[in-house]
Amino acid sequence: MHLKTTSRSIHWLLVLALFLPALARAAEALPSWNDGPSREAIIDFVEAVSAEGSKDYVAPAQRIAVFDNDGTLWSEQPMYFQVLFAMAEVRRLAAQHPQWKSQQPFKAVLENDQKTLAASGMKGLMQIVTATHTGISTEAFRQNAQRWLASNVHPRTHRPYTEMVFQPMLELLAYLRANGFKTYIVSGGEVAFMRTFAEEVYGIPPEQVIGTTFASRFQDLDGELTIQRLAPLTHNDDGPGKPESIEAYIGRRPILAFGNSDGDLQMLQWTMAGPGRRLAGLVHHTDAGREWAYDRQSGVGRLDKALDEARHKEWVIVDMAKEWNRIYPFDQETHP
Amino acid sequence: MHLKTTSRSIHWLLVLALFLPALARAAEALPSWNDGPSREAIIDFVEAVSAEGSKDYVAPAQRIAVFDNDGTLWSEQPMYFQVLFAMAEVRRLAAQHPQWKSQQPFKAVLENDQKTLAASGMKGLMQIVTATHTGISTEAFRQNAQRWLASNVHPRTHRPYTEMVFQPMLELLAYLRANGFKTYIVSGGEVAFMRTFAEEVYGIPPEQVIGTTFASRFQDLDGELTIQRLAPLTHNDDGPGKPESIEAYIGRRPILAFGNSDGDLQMLQWTMAGPGRRLAGLVHHTDAGREWAYDRQSGVGRLDKALDEARHKEWVIVDMAKEWNRIYPFDQETHP
Repeated sequence: MHLKTTSRSIHWLLVLALFLPALARAAEALPSWNDGPSREAIIDFVEAVSAEGSKDYVAPAQRIAVFDNDGTLWSEQPMYFQVLFAMAEVRRLAAQHPQWKSQQPFKAVLENDQKTLAASGMKGLMQIVTATHTGISTEAFRQNAQRWLASNVHPRTHRPYTEMVFQPMLELLAYLRANGFKTYIVSGGEVAFMRTFAEEVYGIPPEQVIGTTFASRFQDLDGELTIQRLAPLTHNDDGPGKPESIEAYIGRRPILAFGNSDGDLQMLQWTMAGPGRRLAGLVHHTDAGREWAYDRQSGVGRLDKALDEARHKEWVIVDMAKEWNRIYPFDQETHP
Repeated sequence: MHLKTTSRSIHWLLVLALFLPALARAAEALPSWNDGPSREAIIDFVEAVSAEGSKDYVAPAQRIAVFDNDGTLWSEQPMYFQVLFAMAEVRRLAAQHPQWKSQQPFKAVLENDQKTLAASGMKGLMQIVTATHTGISTEAFRQNAQRWLASNVHPRTHRPYTEMVFQPMLELLAYLRANGFKTYIVSGGEVAFMRTFAEEVYGIPPEQVIGTTFASRFQDLDGELTIQRLAPLTHNDDGPGKPESIEAYIGRRPILAFGNSDGDLQMLQWTMAGPGRRLAGLVHHTDAGREWAYDRQSGVGRLDKALDEARHKEWVIVDMAKEWNRIYPFDQETHP
């Protein structure tokens, strides 16, 4: 009897010992994610594809993970931060462009006329972005972006924009890299803007940042070499543009993709259509208190068809309010 | 006296001990490179930028090395291997394109009429490449390229094209990676073709292969997802196109670049124009016996202005005949 108990205890100790490493790993990983379906699905997936001998094993070279940026890795309200940058640049450069005082959509920016600006739509937006992102060298642009990021804060949180990144997603990026993944940004944002902060903020080097691009031209003025940024848009990295740029830049299909809007749908579909085990995730903005709550009716970050497809196909849908115990690095943990 | 001798011996032993690791490292590295100015310059450079505390130290993330492909990593005679592939594809697909029998430059390919083909110039070449590289899915193209590479041999060596890579350059790539460098191809060749063999042959993954690109379109036919390759050329990765693509894909300036022709000049200039220690190298085809000898008058791989600039600026100029004791992996070492 006594012996039997001991033997049973030893049995359970052995079982415990076998599971402890996995439990410990799981407890360490993703601390800002509450226990729940998303965290569980992510850890299950990562452990399955990285365990040698697992039927789902994927060689490290093939462990490509792609992330949308706006609304997936950092906030995107009240509008894309890059548009706020472009508008600030219009105001900064207004003295050199006196015609902007009477020319839309620049006039609306200078007069802070939100209604006219909104009415100018995507065409107006592109005019503002083009005017502030091109016609200069890559180095001058980099300095402009860094200056703005370093000296401006978000209107609601009064924090630098580079602090308005999602702590749970920073942890996810780090967790994936610790498990041999190569992490990429694939974003509708213009690529050079993101590259000024992605390495420091996300640990993603410039060569792993893919986005919307303008043309460029190498220029040699008596040995003074620059690359000039030109007005023609060469790639719009949104919707179907995302799998296209993934193929063009990476040349192989990711096994994990995360987005938050209909603009990410094709990237998620493309990721999931490959062979073997894969993971697609959507960040669902459900937290009006700590962040913002929006989906189907939203202008910025509209999540409609992708939400339906994610539900239908049982992709990971992250309920920010329920599943994240912390939103920003500067937040206190709220659901310990 | 005896003591003094011993002390001296110890002194020399110490000196030797201090230098041995460097000597040993140098002897191991780059075995197919004869002792000479190129090998010495490369090892000096790599040791200087990778030694922590060195005044020339460069953080690993910044150790970007870029290599042209044709004529730099593998041979390019009697013409670019990719053009040989395109011509073989014209012959393979001729039955589906009866009009080619009477349409130049296709007629010249089918009749093996070298003179007419040469006269069709870059325009004719692009027609052949476009006809065989676009209008199909990325997956179908990959299979076509792999099939050709697996089942054809070079007319002179009767070896598969993927064996006609330069053993000394394979060693250089591996040596750089062992010292924390990230190695890239930046080539005028079309990117998807190179990606079918670069990982296996050079150890360079698809995401580090940059080249000439065609447009593409994500296509969803009732849930059957493909990326279609389209005819418009979106980037010609030659000459000034090389620094442009380096900025677009990598987003930072390399510290080492190797090429072999005038098409590489701007990439070498761009690399050398940054701050800190840098290395630019040219492979000079001087070995008519073991490979080919050509430079200023050559059509393929013309090396004229870049050779002058390399001499003027004292860049590394690799004299293949003198400095490489082996050309291809299948060669015997000739100058041990």
